[in-house]
Amino acid sequence: MIIVMKKSADKEQLAAVEAKISELGYQPHVIYGETRNVIGAVGEERGKEKLQILQSMAGVDNVVPILKPYKLASLEVQQEPSTIEIVPGLTIGGKEFIVGAGPCAVETREQICETAVAVKAAGARMLRGGAFKPRTSPYSFQGMEEEGLKLLAEARELTGLPIVTEVVNPRDVELVARYADVMQVGARNTQNFALLKMLGQLDKPILLKRGMATTIQEFLMSAEYILSEGNRRVILCERGIRTFETATRNTLDLSAIPVLKQQTHLPVVIDPSHGTGHSALVPAMCYAAAAAGADGLLVEVHPCPENATSDGPQSLRPDDFAAMMNKLRRFVDVCERTMAG
Amino acid sequence: MIIVMKKSADKEQLAAVEAKISELGYQPHVIYGETRNVIGAVGEERGKEKLQILQSMAGVDNVVPILKPYKLASLEVQQEPSTIEIVPGLTIGGKEFIVGAGPCAVETREQICETAVAVKAAGARMLRGGAFKPRTSPYSFQGMEEEGLKLLAEARELTGLPIVTEVVNPRDVELVARYADVMQVGARNTQNFALLKMLGQLDKPILLKRGMATTIQEFLMSAEYILSEGNRRVILCERGIRTFETATRNTLDLSAIPVLKQQTHLPVVIDPSHGTGHSALVPAMCYAAAAAGADGLLVEVHPCPENATSDGPQSLRPDDFAAMMNKLRRFVDVCERTMAG
Amino acid sequence: MIIVMKKSADKEQLAAVEAKISELGYQPHVIYGETRNVIGAVGEERGKEKLQILQSMAGVDNVVPILKPYKLASLEVQQEPSTIEIVPGLTIGGKEFIVGAGPCAVETREQICETAVAVKAAGARMLRGGAFKPRTSPYSFQGMEEEGLKLLAEARELTGLPIVTEVVNPRDVELVARYADVMQVGARNTQNFALLKMLGQLDKPILLKRGMATTIQEFLMSAEYILSEGNRRVILCERGIRTFETATRNTLDLSAIPVLKQQTHLPVVIDPSHGTGHSALVPAMCYAAAAAGADGLLVEVHPCPENATSDGPQSLRPDDFAAMMNKLRRFVDVCERTMAG
Amino acid sequence: MIIVMKKSADKEQLAAVEAKISELGYQPHVIYGETRNVIGAVGEERGKEKLQILQSMAGVDNVVPILKPYKLASLEVQQEPSTIEIVPGLTIGGKEFIVGAGPCAVETREQICETAVAVKAAGARMLRGGAFKPRTSPYSFQGMEEEGLKLLAEARELTGLPIVTEVVNPRDVELVARYADVMQVGARNTQNFALLKMLGQLDKPILLKRGMATTIQEFLMSAEYILSEGNRRVILCERGIRTFETATRNTLDLSAIPVLKQQTHLPVVIDPSHGTGHSALVPAMCYAAAAAGADGLLVEVHPCPENATSDGPQSLRPDDFAAMMNKLRRFVDVCERTMAG
Repeated sequence: MIIVMKKSADKEQLAAVEAKISELGYQPHVIYGETRNVIGAVGEERGKEKLQILQSMAGVDNVVPILKPYKLASLEVQQEPSTIEIVPGLTIGGKEFIVGAGPCAVETREQICETAVAVKAAGARMLRGGAFKPRTSPYSFQGMEEEGLKLLAEARELTGLPIVTEVVNPRDVELVARYADVMQVGARNTQNFALLKMLGQLDKPILLKRGMATTIQEFLMSAEYILSEGNRRVILCERGIRTFETATRNTLDLSAIPVLKQQTHLPVVIDPSHGTGHSALVPAMCYAAAAAGADGLLVEVHPCPENATSDGPQSLRPDDFAAMMNKLRRFVDVCERTMAG
Repeated sequence: MIIVMKKSADKEQLAAVEAKISELGYQPHVIYGETRNVIGAVGEERGKEKLQILQSMAGVDNVVPILKPYKLASLEVQQEPSTIEIVPGLTIGGKEFIVGAGPCAVETREQICETAVAVKAAGARMLRGGAFKPRTSPYSFQGMEEEGLKLLAEARELTGLPIVTEVVNPRDVELVARYADVMQVGARNTQNFALLKMLGQLDKPILLKRGMATTIQEFLMSAEYILSEGNRRVILCERGIRTFETATRNTLDLSAIPVLKQQTHLPVVIDPSHGTGHSALVPAMCYAAAAAGADGLLVEVHPCPENATSDGPQSLRPDDFAAMMNKLRRFVDVCERTMAG
Repeated sequence: MIIVMKKSADKEQLAAVEAKISELGYQPHVIYGETRNVIGAVGEERGKEKLQILQSMAGVDNVVPILKPYKLASLEVQQEPSTIEIVPGLTIGGKEFIVGAGPCAVETREQICETAVAVKAAGARMLRGGAFKPRTSPYSFQGMEEEGLKLLAEARELTGLPIVTEVVNPRDVELVARYADVMQVGARNTQNFALLKMLGQLDKPILLKRGMATTIQEFLMSAEYILSEGNRRVILCERGIRTFETATRNTLDLSAIPVLKQQTHLPVVIDPSHGTGHSALVPAMCYAAAAAGADGLLVEVHPCPENATSDGPQSLRPDDFAAMMNKLRRFVDVCERTMAG
Repeated sequence: MIIVMKKSADKEQLAAVEAKISELGYQPHVIYGETRNVIGAVGEERGKEKLQILQSMAGVDNVVPILKPYKLASLEVQQEPSTIEIVPGLTIGGKEFIVGAGPCAVETREQICETAVAVKAAGARMLRGGAFKPRTSPYSFQGMEEEGLKLLAEARELTGLPIVTEVVNPRDVELVARYADVMQVGARNTQNFALLKMLGQLDKPILLKRGMATTIQEFLMSAEYILSEGNRRVILCERGIRTFETATRNTLDLSAIPVLKQQTHLPVVIDPSHGTGHSALVPAMCYAAAAAGADGLLVEVHPCPENATSDGPQSLRPDDFAAMMNKLRRFVDVCERTMAG
């Protein structure tokens, strides 16, 4: 932390701030400037956020944090990218570019099985599908719950694809974990710390979505909640942030890919379906995500988008998905990575 | 819903959309325009969001919702403002302007009791204080939990002030409800629908904060989650939204007050402490909130902000709080409302 | 500036950064930390932004500015609030709370004169009205240009109210200045530096609106463009910023009032008409602005909003304006300020 | 436009709105709903925005625009992508992917010539460089003005690369046009309509940057200002929008590429330097832009970023630029486009 004193601060105020820094367990180092003084606080990094309270002291203009508050997620702790085992024989974060695909919500046995077969044939390596749906309106379809999980398990049986599915309630963690291969945390729960802590105690990979108004630093702090409980298998997923633009459902922040790669060893996947909200925009964003260095994608596919119970407008039809995958493969090639199929 | 067809849409596409609207249980009414056609879908309002899927059909340019999706929160259901009983003898939403005050987090018996006595003397009618703290970093103080709830109860005993405190985990609802008079839902949980549904089954008032990236319409939909479970005592709290501006912690959206008053009968309170993040900005925003027609305030007060475990920079000292309340009273007067003290 | 070195930075990199700081005319002061080093650069504040380039050097993690870049607008240069003479006998920034009112655009002699008489009767002290209109669409009405300025002058003749009107093109500065008492810079021109520089050479007050995506610091830098050319009569106007919320046209940032009052001596007025976009929301925001400490208001009033060529939905009718002014007067009273009428 | 009546609206109010629609030159078509009525207004699309004023009428809940307000920029007017001649023998919007590169500001003959030679060797087809610089602070370097234009012309002479350079003041249009091959409008001038109109009368291509808070629809309306004056050579440039995220200077909105391609025939280029603000993030965004279907790039390159007078931190060194171009070429290949070099 750097404590910036006001121009008008006097010696007593400076001394009081120095004393407070010492009291909090840090050593104050004053830089005497031409028009004002600043103080560096030297010491143990963890816990430095408590120095923020100096902002309430007389003569203090500003307290400027200079360090990133996360540890386990940071490249400073682990410089090599993490490769995370999803299921035996399938890892993410390594040479293979991983595509997960499937409907927003599980609706029927037919729907989920048909989709699973189709996306597998096109090269997907994971099946996504929601059984617990967080919906803005209490009057919208809320998901098939355990029945949906069972249908996902059937689709896995049929195709061998591991399942990614969302958990929204700490109470359901155990239930969802009985079926899921990867537990998904949705954008509305990125800072549901009670849920994150429980997931940190599981022995399963967690796919953590970025919240609509979550900065990248906060996103990594949410990952840190899971990591610090002992679960090191966290996959980060950018899915669009909320901005003033209304042409898209959200603004997909693809620059998050290189930013995250500079700061963390965790794998990064992109969800262009929620990111854009319109199926016609999805393929371009899939190609861009691969080119920007993502480790994979999560794409909504529905056999009949106009009958979907949720998110139809952003779901690809199976044949459009297959066409996208074919072109995607060529961009992935340029990145010197591989893709199934 | 209004379905806007593309200029290039042909008769077959128009007919297909009409047929789909009928299939979904609505009657299509086509308006034939000079350059393009639009279709209105007439019928039962609840459930109309399913018409969104028409956007996936050939020839459709856009699907435009024209109605608000919430019901129980709306003025169309109840035109008179709701006055909500907090505890016997204390209501919000009526003639009295209600101020809740207290520290961000409960820290010690002394701290919470001293604050309670001070804020009561200054005219506060509720005591706020967090026992379960959702913190961005897993390494920050997470609250005293049940121990904190007990201290709040002691402070209530001492002063008679009812307690507003946050619940962050559906698992803790019962525990928190044993102590709290008003259950608070924080900004990170505005769309934690599992939590909202449980609170909808309680017989206690709920103070629901707006999320950092929650539109007013979504905010009302979150209230609807509670209302539709049977609990009609919902108090809405604007606490700042996330924007590009960094001079303040959030951007306090005071225009939300008249907007909400146009759309809902639920009471509206303002939290200028989180809204601005700087104690020096809080009094001006308290006055503005009252003048704009809010029903009350939630203000952070700490006996010694520079020792606070969280949010010190935005907490008022007790004497600054008292000074603010004195001036506030005169603005409340102009609004023809009353204030305690 | 504080230069934060990477954990991995070696001695050579540290030395190179120190050398570069010296070369740029500052003295480097290193604080040796437990896990990384930071360097303070001491010297003349003006021009310090050039130290940003150190960010390109090997071993540098981050360059953190600690000072505000504006000077003439700052409280450090002038601690007393500026009171600015609009015309002889009328000042803003002092004890009187000043309301300017009038239509978005001048349309006819009747319209502008009728409005001028009505707003004066209700207590307005300035007449606003646009003759040059920056419109999003080239196909929308672009203003009456000089003809409109002449009508404004007639309305001034009739009522004695000084005129506030917008200039959008550096080429028109001289023309507009022949008619206007206060030159307005609209939100789309807040960073039109060519225009600001020209206005800095005028001997007339400038009403500078904040841009839709302009931070408060950038807003003050734009004021600095005018001030640094010699014109010290700058009035700042907050008129809403662009956020994700769509219930209002913009999000009116009333916390900008106390923030600006902490940082600058310049007067601050609020435009709740553009800030909200809906006339029904305007009165509440007028009261809130006064309570928050603004020095005045700019309000759109039109004799017949449903016939307005622009911004009808946000314009008050004269009788609604008069009612608002009556109630406003009582809030202004509490602020210990005066109002005409 | 669709006019949504309130539930509580009575017959007289409905009739009054119908009458007003007719008076404004449109035919009203009422759809009688179960709980409320809506009215479609049929007629000439241009000018329909004037129907917005119906929002001020009694009984009206909302006025919903259903059409895009731009014409000449739209795909409905021209379905084939525009290929725009930059100089004889060089077009953009066709099969060739065009990279423009160069320093933020022209500083010396050596700097601009060295850069021009280097970027040409790496495959750039245009030289960018600013002679008139819009800077946030009046105390920052404002550009070399005409001297800079002359140096750009020398660099063109030396390399044959056409020049892209910014004009910020309508007064300077003629001067800049004497030197520039492509006139650039910066992000702060996207809605400087006076400037746009003048550029619409030139016979030169215009590179129009999107403003920091400009929606895609407004961006196309700004293009429309140029097109409607007769100049059909407009190149759109996305350069990042302002959001809450601070890890990047702006948030580069790559989804704008497919959105624009759905709505307009104009070519689209991406500026990842301003979009991200950090040179280390630029290459990933270049690859992503190409993969997403952009027609070209504008990239900042400086021979010695740590000596740059502006934007050093986001400028690539020539060798990093060359390395980026080599990898970029392979992504462009996959897009079935060509690149020079």
